[in-house]
Amino acid sequence: MKSWHILVHGGAGELRAIPAERERACRTALRHSVEAGAQILSTGGSSLDAVIAAVKILEDSGLFNAGRGSARNAEGHREMDAAVMEGASRRAGAVAAVRSLRNPVIAAHLVAQHTPHVLLVSEGAETFALQHGAERVPPSYFRPPLDDSIPDDTVGAVALDIHGCLAAATSTGGTTRKPAGRVGDTPLIGAGTYADNRSCAVSTTGIGEYFIRAVTAYSVHARMLWGRRTLAEAAQEALEEVATLGGAGGLIGIDTMGNSITLCTTSGMYRGMGTPDGRIFTALFRDEPWKEG
Amino acid sequence: MKSWHILVHGGAGELRAIPAERERACRTALRHSVEAGAQILSTGGSSLDAVIAAVKILEDSGLFNAGRGSARNAEGHREMDAAVMEGASRRAGAVAAVRSLRNPVIAAHLVAQHTPHVLLVSEGAETFALQHGAERVPPSYFRPPLDDSIPDDTVGAVALDIHGCLAAATSTGGTTRKPAGRVGDTPLIGAGTYADNRSCAVSTTGIGEYFIRAVTAYSVHARMLWGRRTLAEAAQEALEEVATLGGAGGLIGIDTMGNSITLCTTSGMYRGMGTPDGRIFTALFRDEPWKEG
Repeated sequence: MKSWHILVHGGAGELRAIPAERERACRTALRHSVEAGAQILSTGGSSLDAVIAAVKILEDSGLFNAGRGSARNAEGHREMDAAVMEGASRRAGAVAAVRSLRNPVIAAHLVAQHTPHVLLVSEGAETFALQHGAERVPPSYFRPPLDDSIPDDTVGAVALDIHGCLAAATSTGGTTRKPAGRVGDTPLIGAGTYADNRSCAVSTTGIGEYFIRAVTAYSVHARMLWGRRTLAEAAQEALEEVATLGGAGGLIGIDTMGNSITLCTTSGMYRGMGTPDGRIFTALFRDEPWKEG
Repeated sequence: MKSWHILVHGGAGELRAIPAERERACRTALRHSVEAGAQILSTGGSSLDAVIAAVKILEDSGLFNAGRGSARNAEGHREMDAAVMEGASRRAGAVAAVRSLRNPVIAAHLVAQHTPHVLLVSEGAETFALQHGAERVPPSYFRPPLDDSIPDDTVGAVALDIHGCLAAATSTGGTTRKPAGRVGDTPLIGAGTYADNRSCAVSTTGIGEYFIRAVTAYSVHARMLWGRRTLAEAAQEALEEVATLGGAGGLIGIDTMGNSITLCTTSGMYRGMGTPDGRIFTALFRDEPWKEG
C-alpha cells in the first residue's frame, strides 16, 4: 500500500511571546486538525476530503484568523476567503468576501462540486453555499476581537493520499482592518492555493498581496516542473521572491513522493504534521524542531 | 531609441458569421484602441498607461463583452471584472463583480495606485473607486442585450514601451447568465493577466475557469523563465494545457524583445496591433493574416 502524508498550518507571523495557555491551545488545535485529516487518509480516503476536514477544525477552533477566529475588517465585519484544489483533475473551488458562513472551506468545496465555476464572491457566494447546505452563523458566533499576538493570517492544509493524489486547502479572515471587499491570495488558485499531481500541493500564509503578485503557490509547481528544482528548493526560491517584492510569510508543501516542507520568513508559523505510523507533530517557532504529541 | 509595441484583443470565440456591419465596427474599435495606446507609447509614455487607454476604448465601445457591452448575469445585472499589471515593479490592481463603474480597468488601476492591495470586489471595490474619482454610470448606460454572435468574452491589451517595460490589462463582463458573484480569470493575476519584465506580458480570453485552473498567463512566463521556451512556444503550450482541461480561448502576449503572439483555439479572436512605424493592423478569424488599416 502506498503511503500518505498531511501537513497543516495556522498562519505565519511574529510569534516572539505566546502565552503558555495559547501555545497549548494552538498545539491541541493543530493536533486535532492533523488527526481529522489522518483519520481519512489512513482509511483510504482522498487527500481532498482530508484537507477540508483538517481546515474545518482550524476554522472552528477560533484560535486562528479563519472561520470563527476571523479578524474584523475596517467596517467591523468578518469577510472570509477560502479555496480547495485537487491535484489529479486540477478541479478547484473558492469563495471570497463571505460573511455569514461557518466554514468557508466547505463553501469552496461546494463550488467545485456543484458548479462549473471556480470562484464565487460576496452575496452570490453566500446564497449559493446556503442553497447547497452550508451552515449559516450569526455575527455572535465569531469570537471576540483578536489580541495582537495573533498573526494576520490564515490556515491551510496539504495532503497526499494512498492513491497518489495531492490536494490543498486554505482559509482566512484576511488582514485585520482590511477595507471591505479586499481579497488576498488565499482564495486565488495559484497564489495561495495550488495542487497538481505533476509536482506538488501548496498552501501559503502571509501578506497576501505579495503572494498574488508572485503567484507563489503555482510558482513552486513551475520551478519543480520546468526548473527541475526539488520541492524544498522551489519553496525556498518562491519565498525569496516574495521577500524581494517586500513581503513576508510562509508556506507548507508536499510532493507526489511524500516529501514535505514547511518554511517561513517570519519568526514563526503554527504548523502540524501527520505520518502513516500514526504519529503527530507540531511546531510554532521558525527553527523549532517538530515536537511529537 | 528603443522600440515599442502594442497588441489588443476583443475576445475569442466562434465567429463563423459576423454581419459585415459588425465586422466594420469591431475593426474600427480595435483600431481606435491600438491608436490610443500607440499615441502614448510613441511619445515615450508607459506601457501601463498605454494598455489602460487601449482597454478603456474597448470598454466604451459597447461592441465587446466588457464595460458598456458587458453581458447580463443570471439576475439581469452586469458584474464586471478587470486587472492591470506592470512588469518592472510587478505592481498590480484588480476589481471584480463591480456593477456601476463605467471603466473597470481604471478602477483596477486606482487599486494599484492608491492601496497596498491587489484585488477589491463588489460594493467595497465600487465604493473605493468612486471615492477616488472613478465614473459611475446608471444601468441605462449599458447597451441592449447581447446577440448570440458575440463571444462570451473579454477585452485586453499588452504593450512594451521604449523604456523596456511591459504591461498587461484585461476587462470583462464575464460569461452571459453567470451566477451572481462568479469571477473568472480576467481579474486574477497570473490567470487572465500577467506582466513581468523578466519574460512577457499576457492577456487571456476564453472560458475563465480553465484559465484559472491552468494559471495560464503566469504559465507563459514560467515556461519562458524556467522552461527556456520562446514566447510563441510558451503561448502554444499554455493554450494546449487549457484545451487538455477541456477549455477553449485565446491570448495575446509580448516579450521584452518586442516579439508578439496572438493565438486562439476558437475559430476567431478580435485583435489589433500597432507598430512603431505608425501602422495599425486588425484580424478577426483564427488563420486570417493581419490586415492593415
